[in-house]
Amino acid sequence: MTASTEAGAKRKLYLEDLAVGDRFQSGEHVLDVAQIKAFAQQFDPQPFHTDEEAAKATFFGGLAASGWHTAALTMKLLVDSGIPLADGIIGSGGELQWPRPTRPGDVLHVVSEVVEITPSRSKPGRAMVTMRCQTLNQRGEVLQSFTPKLVVHSRPASA
Amino acid sequence: MTASTEAGAKRKLYLEDLAVGDRFQSGEHVLDVAQIKAFAQQFDPQPFHTDEEAAKATFFGGLAASGWHTAALTMKLLVDSGIPLADGIIGSGGELQWPRPTRPGDVLHVVSEVVEITPSRSKPGRAMVTMRCQTLNQRGEVLQSFTPKLVVHSRPASA
Repeated sequence: MTASTEAGAKRKLYLEDLAVGDRFQSGEHVLDVAQIKAFAQQFDPQPFHTDEEAAKATFFGGLAASGWHTAALTMKLLVDSGIPLADGIIGSGGELQWPRPTRPGDVLHVVSEVVEITPSRSKPGRAMVTMRCQTLNQRGEVLQSFTPKLVVHSRPASA
Repeated sequence: MTASTEAGAKRKLYLEDLAVGDRFQSGEHVLDVAQIKAFAQQFDPQPFHTDEEAAKATFFGGLAASGWHTAALTMKLLVDSGIPLADGIIGSGGELQWPRPTRPGDVLHVVSEVVEITPSRSKPGRAMVTMRCQTLNQRGEVLQSFTPKLVVHSRPASA
């Protein structure tokens, strides 16, 4: 691990600072029932995300967070403390997996690793950086795996 | 198109009701600056999502919605009117792409198509249904493409 949580949260990284295999770990987010319901009521109003009783009789067997809630919280963790890119975390998408439901009481954190760095052919000083971002709970269970392609720029002459 | 918006919003579909090539169209969501900033402040607090002035000097050249906001609104449209599955929209993930930024004033709708139906080998009455869900704006520009794998069940004997 070349960048610890502490150092990672303070440094601002450019393309030159990244290498395949670099890892970053975010801070934590504690998820509760109220947050799960509030997000679901706004964006994913299905019984297994909004109603603890109704959720028992569903596929999930109990209240679960919307996958998009897990995804949004992952982004919050990445922005706040996860991947300290100088120009921000700018992605064009990637493969997204939710291997198990996120539950009330889960404490989320994100571990990210640089998988591939592909310099732009047309734009000098820019690269597409593929990361693998795994969102884990307090038991180390993977709640989400996302492999975004991020746009990362070189350090400007003045920086 | 085997299920129109009107019919799609009212019918409740089981596995037997789906065929490769079936298409569904959701209702619309009108996005404005306030929504973009509110989501971003909670989940993706980066200047290009939270501050119109600061956004001008960034990669996006102006305020853009978080990709996760586009994704969450897509889910809302799918749940409300997009894919009327009887047991809900339950996905394990998929390939997610944001080919262009979502902007203030964009009016979103989602067009979904059944791409593949793979019956479960171990669980009779269940299949993995791959859909292609494209989120478009009022000019027909694709803002997001997502190809989720959904868990879909057969009609129970009583239904």
